[in-house]
Amino acid sequence: MNLSRNATLAEVGEFPLIAAITQGLSLASDVRVGPGDDAAVLAIEDAVAASVDLLVEGVHFRRDWSEARDVGRKAVAVNVADIEAIGARATGLLVGLSAPPDLALAWVLDFADGLSDEGKAAGVSLLGGDVTRARDITIAVTALGALDGRRPVLRSGAHPGDVVAISGRLGWAAGGLVVLGRGFRSPRVLVEAQRVPQLSYGAGAVAAQAGATSMIDISDGLLADLGHVAQASGVLIDLRQDAFDVAEPLQAVAAATGSDPYTLVFTGGDDHALAATFPALDAVPVGWRVVGRVEVADHDHIGVLVDGKVWESPAGYDHFRSARASESRR
Amino acid sequence: MNLSRNATLAEVGEFPLIAAITQGLSLASDVRVGPGDDAAVLAIEDAVAASVDLLVEGVHFRRDWSEARDVGRKAVAVNVADIEAIGARATGLLVGLSAPPDLALAWVLDFADGLSDEGKAAGVSLLGGDVTRARDITIAVTALGALDGRRPVLRSGAHPGDVVAISGRLGWAAGGLVVLGRGFRSPRVLVEAQRVPQLSYGAGAVAAQAGATSMIDISDGLLADLGHVAQASGVLIDLRQDAFDVAEPLQAVAAATGSDPYTLVFTGGDDHALAATFPALDAVPVGWRVVGRVEVADHDHIGVLVDGKVWESPAGYDHFRSARASESRR
Repeated sequence: MNLSRNATLAEVGEFPLIAAITQGLSLASDVRVGPGDDAAVLAIEDAVAASVDLLVEGVHFRRDWSEARDVGRKAVAVNVADIEAIGARATGLLVGLSAPPDLALAWVLDFADGLSDEGKAAGVSLLGGDVTRARDITIAVTALGALDGRRPVLRSGAHPGDVVAISGRLGWAAGGLVVLGRGFRSPRVLVEAQRVPQLSYGAGAVAAQAGATSMIDISDGLLADLGHVAQASGVLIDLRQDAFDVAEPLQAVAAATGSDPYTLVFTGGDDHALAATFPALDAVPVGWRVVGRVEVADHDHIGVLVDGKVWESPAGYDHFRSARASESRR
Repeated sequence: MNLSRNATLAEVGEFPLIAAITQGLSLASDVRVGPGDDAAVLAIEDAVAASVDLLVEGVHFRRDWSEARDVGRKAVAVNVADIEAIGARATGLLVGLSAPPDLALAWVLDFADGLSDEGKAAGVSLLGGDVTRARDITIAVTALGALDGRRPVLRSGAHPGDVVAISGRLGWAAGGLVVLGRGFRSPRVLVEAQRVPQLSYGAGAVAAQAGATSMIDISDGLLADLGHVAQASGVLIDLRQDAFDVAEPLQAVAAATGSDPYTLVFTGGDDHALAATFPALDAVPVGWRVVGRVEVADHDHIGVLVDGKVWESPAGYDHFRSARASESRR
């Protein structure tokens, strides 16, 4: 079919739209039934890991700040990160897309290209989805994954004496938000980090294989997310500030805004690094940076400290209460 | 925690909201990791069936026409129907919910009760989900299922000579829409069918076990959905009009509106009956009604006929082009 990229979704229609999204899709050999039937079927042994994330226009992305392709890539990355965080290997994706009828086909095709590109990088196949109309664009991504015989790594498994380690970047996406919020486009590496988190796929499985006792995907900020681990495990986590590198672009943004770069590192979300605890230093895999220790909960104090003290700054993110810098307020 | 049902989601906050939704949840023994971690883990052998559906406020439901509990029940039913249609047994659900911050907690709690009630009826566990803010309520349900060693039943397997059979009701939800659209609340059975489809869970697995050659969930209307089967299988499907019962409430609505009740039966969506083809009459399971035959595609005519003729009426539904009667036009 010859569809103009400028056509609106209303002009294209539901079924040609689905055909345009799924044409030329490459499916891995574990996909037994792909898009086009009532349900997909994915080969899997013993157990499936599954997670869903919603990305809402105006809340999680803005069309004037992010290209459609980047939104597609981000939709895959944030969800694969959840599968990685339990020690699994993501293998399949289901994507629900609701969008206004006057949206141009081009946006959806570019979004689908982004899904496909990041899917290839992550090793996941697009299994199926759903498209429907709505006022705003909402993307619901479900990722499925295989544990390959490993035990799932939960938030609740951290023990006093474990070491805490990180794989991935911290504060970059938040730095990008600060930049974009002030109308700038550089440092470009930060802006790009805000648009698409840069993940090292496979790190979660490596950590699980290495004996990680707990793990979490850092989506809301290091202190907030490690707080969930501390809470679920009933422990205290003590981080060493000097174990964290503050990358040059973060220093530049902090200097330009007169703020503390460690606030970005400790409280910035959306980078989707992994934090895990390991039973010993020599269990920490290559590519992971040791940043702290798990301690016995002290006088009923369960939580996260930095150099033995409470970090003074807003440490959490609440999807109903707080306003993210990325949000259009309407 | 003591939360007022009148509190808004913004007052409640994300994490207490999740706790309120998931508290008291009963999980089946195949759930290895339930809500509260980065991903859920569901025991499954060999292969997982998976499907996602979006329900958007103003498109798929209206808050003034449906109670929150009914929206929750419907969200489960429509998605489990997709898993059934491939011959699988639904076992797990992931639910993404985006909602305005000023929505009352009561709506979400009642919605969650509906999820739970219909989940129990369908034998599925709520595995996890995501909540976030948006202008309109959007519900993304992902259902996962097990094939228990059966081969998936696809849309593409119908063969000339097969018989066509139906399990479930046709036209009831569409009849309910007609009633509601005119400001009436009766016949109540139709209004209720519009709010929550009444499914006979397990019918899909029974059909697969009986050797169904193709199967589909009727969501957009019998002729439209059997059209997908005919297209995917490269066959002609001929239905016998006298094989269909027109239930008394449908006759009443048709009489009151001066319309043909068979239009509701053949083109009404949202009942989520199953249509399947079987290799022989004696393969059709108890509870399924034989309504037609699969024929060789005639002069390149692939599609669905009623008593050998094309049914003259709008037979399809396009989520971007058409307006459903349920929609608020804004």
